[in-house]
Amino acid sequence: MRWQNRLTTLLRIEYPFVQAPMLGITTPAMVAAISNAGGLGSLPVGGLSADVTRSLIKETKALTNKPFAVNLFTHTNPDSIDESSFDSMQQFLVTLAANENIPYTAPIAENLAFFSYHDQIDILAQEKIPIVSFTFGIPDDDSIITLKNSGARLIGTATCVEEALLLETKFIDVVTAQGAEAGGHRGSFINGKNPPMIGSLSLIPQIVDAIRLPVLAAGGIADGRSMVAAFILGSQGVQVGSAFIASHESAAVNAHKHIVQNSSATASVLTRSFSGRWARGIQNKLMESVEGSGLTIPAYPIQQRLIAPLRIYGQQAEQTDLIAMWAGQSASRAIRKSSNEIFQTLIKQAETMYEGNEFIKIV
Amino acid sequence: MRWQNRLTTLLRIEYPFVQAPMLGITTPAMVAAISNAGGLGSLPVGGLSADVTRSLIKETKALTNKPFAVNLFTHTNPDSIDESSFDSMQQFLVTLAANENIPYTAPIAENLAFFSYHDQIDILAQEKIPIVSFTFGIPDDDSIITLKNSGARLIGTATCVEEALLLETKFIDVVTAQGAEAGGHRGSFINGKNPPMIGSLSLIPQIVDAIRLPVLAAGGIADGRSMVAAFILGSQGVQVGSAFIASHESAAVNAHKHIVQNSSATASVLTRSFSGRWARGIQNKLMESVEGSGLTIPAYPIQQRLIAPLRIYGQQAEQTDLIAMWAGQSASRAIRKSSNEIFQTLIKQAETMYEGNEFIKIV
Repeated sequence: MRWQNRLTTLLRIEYPFVQAPMLGITTPAMVAAISNAGGLGSLPVGGLSADVTRSLIKETKALTNKPFAVNLFTHTNPDSIDESSFDSMQQFLVTLAANENIPYTAPIAENLAFFSYHDQIDILAQEKIPIVSFTFGIPDDDSIITLKNSGARLIGTATCVEEALLLETKFIDVVTAQGAEAGGHRGSFINGKNPPMIGSLSLIPQIVDAIRLPVLAAGGIADGRSMVAAFILGSQGVQVGSAFIASHESAAVNAHKHIVQNSSATASVLTRSFSGRWARGIQNKLMESVEGSGLTIPAYPIQQRLIAPLRIYGQQAEQTDLIAMWAGQSASRAIRKSSNEIFQTLIKQAETMYEGNEFIKIV
Repeated sequence: MRWQNRLTTLLRIEYPFVQAPMLGITTPAMVAAISNAGGLGSLPVGGLSADVTRSLIKETKALTNKPFAVNLFTHTNPDSIDESSFDSMQQFLVTLAANENIPYTAPIAENLAFFSYHDQIDILAQEKIPIVSFTFGIPDDDSIITLKNSGARLIGTATCVEEALLLETKFIDVVTAQGAEAGGHRGSFINGKNPPMIGSLSLIPQIVDAIRLPVLAAGGIADGRSMVAAFILGSQGVQVGSAFIASHESAAVNAHKHIVQNSSATASVLTRSFSGRWARGIQNKLMESVEGSGLTIPAYPIQQRLIAPLRIYGQQAEQTDLIAMWAGQSASRAIRKSSNEIFQTLIKQAETMYEGNEFIKIV
């Protein structure tokens, strides 16, 4: 079976298989494993400082000579912090932590500094990152020009046809169609209040038909069947996230991996409680507490900062009640193997389904 | 290409293609057209009286000698009506109708009589209906025995693995996996408050892997690509609804067909406003008004009865602001042709994709 198509040619990779950028889960070792195997690893740096961004890139480059993508959050940070909702949420979390005997140093509104993707663009250009993917919006024109001039291919994220059409008006090379099945943050940047939740089976062919750019399918792809289905639906590539949560290279702690592998799709819910943006993850106590509080949840990334100390503690103490366990609706297919082994397993499953046929064509 | 598989053998049909039962849209003529073409037409009779049920069956039988399915709502009616929420909603609708100059005779709580599927079972058995499908729950054991003794095959609806496993404990022959993309009512019968909203790409393989019964895929299937994808994901058949909304045999009025064909997937939302049960349809003014009222929406089928006079008027006056325009996330693929032509178009699209290959196998 020939895996080469329009997308592999464009991105200079061997398989049209992208490991999804999962902030908090994906490590440089995971990125390198997938890129070394011939897929495209994606290093998530959304919301991180310039220094951390540079250091993660260097760490990844030390592990692979193959192309990998760096993933940005291209939202606009809030101009100001609504003190009322900030203070209420802060007080709620202080009390919650005290009641549960969890150490919690509350962030102070005046001290909060938000990093912007603007601070990362020059680094990516200097480091000649070959593929830059982004979510939560479209980079401004200057950033796009800088990245394109550095030779980068750009991958934008759409959760509906309308967003895909907007991406196509810019110098974007590939559009990721993020179906409602996908774990983690919704990439939506229009219809902000209630993000579009369109299932992959509907979304993929609609975006494929609406734009001329190659489409990368994301959401619900976790085995050979769903990979082949995504190609049948017209996508040129697949992006796989949850299947790697339990991998050896994942930053998830053991208890977290266990919960994901044993999760039911009904346990995976949409929430704004962990970051202020809609994201899909496995329901747990911290999520329920914040939602049950009835408080207004501050906008992203304010809520993300307020809750971060609890999440970091949860990670260190392996308390899954406190961890944001982002996971897609097929997350129970997560496998406890090396990322390379998971990649090979999925490729083999898909090849077996093709049984020598040629559904993936060079377009 | 051979379409025959385990499902076609079981249901004695030529193509593993089921026209979805769409109450208010599906007519006996639509059912007969699909069954005559070799698929399985489905006559929706959920919540209808015994007399209407019998008459619709006779009408359908006059148009086809081929097997067709009759679809039941197998919920339990409420024991009593909560007067407070009933009265508030009634008053709200009276005022809304008066403000808009819409005739509205408010139903009176004491006069409401709900039909139950129990009153329909004997009719289906007497009429020797070969296939009985159901949603909103599992028929009681007596009903299952009566139907099985009459020779019927039973198709149950699941929106998550847990429901599919429950169906498998009964004498059910086929499980419909209803993905989140599907239009109309969610068939969910556990997790009542927030129904599972699992995308087809995740749901189909999960249910296929969890049970031994053949699986019928529903939700987001509206062209050849999505049909083939559903088979790739392991289903034995496909159920197609929205693609027939604009068909010549559809009961939808012209303006309704126009809106569905020109709809964006982002316009399709979940609502309890029209019936008291969660259902997916195209957002309109009546839906927004009821939701914006802040009132408690009475349970199904109480709300359905309260709002019915407005919906009936909307249908007659072609006022789409008042119609429950149930539609799936791929509803823009609805075609203005005869149901038979739509069926042939989709079958041909799928066959073209197979290019002589044999993905559908007899299992």
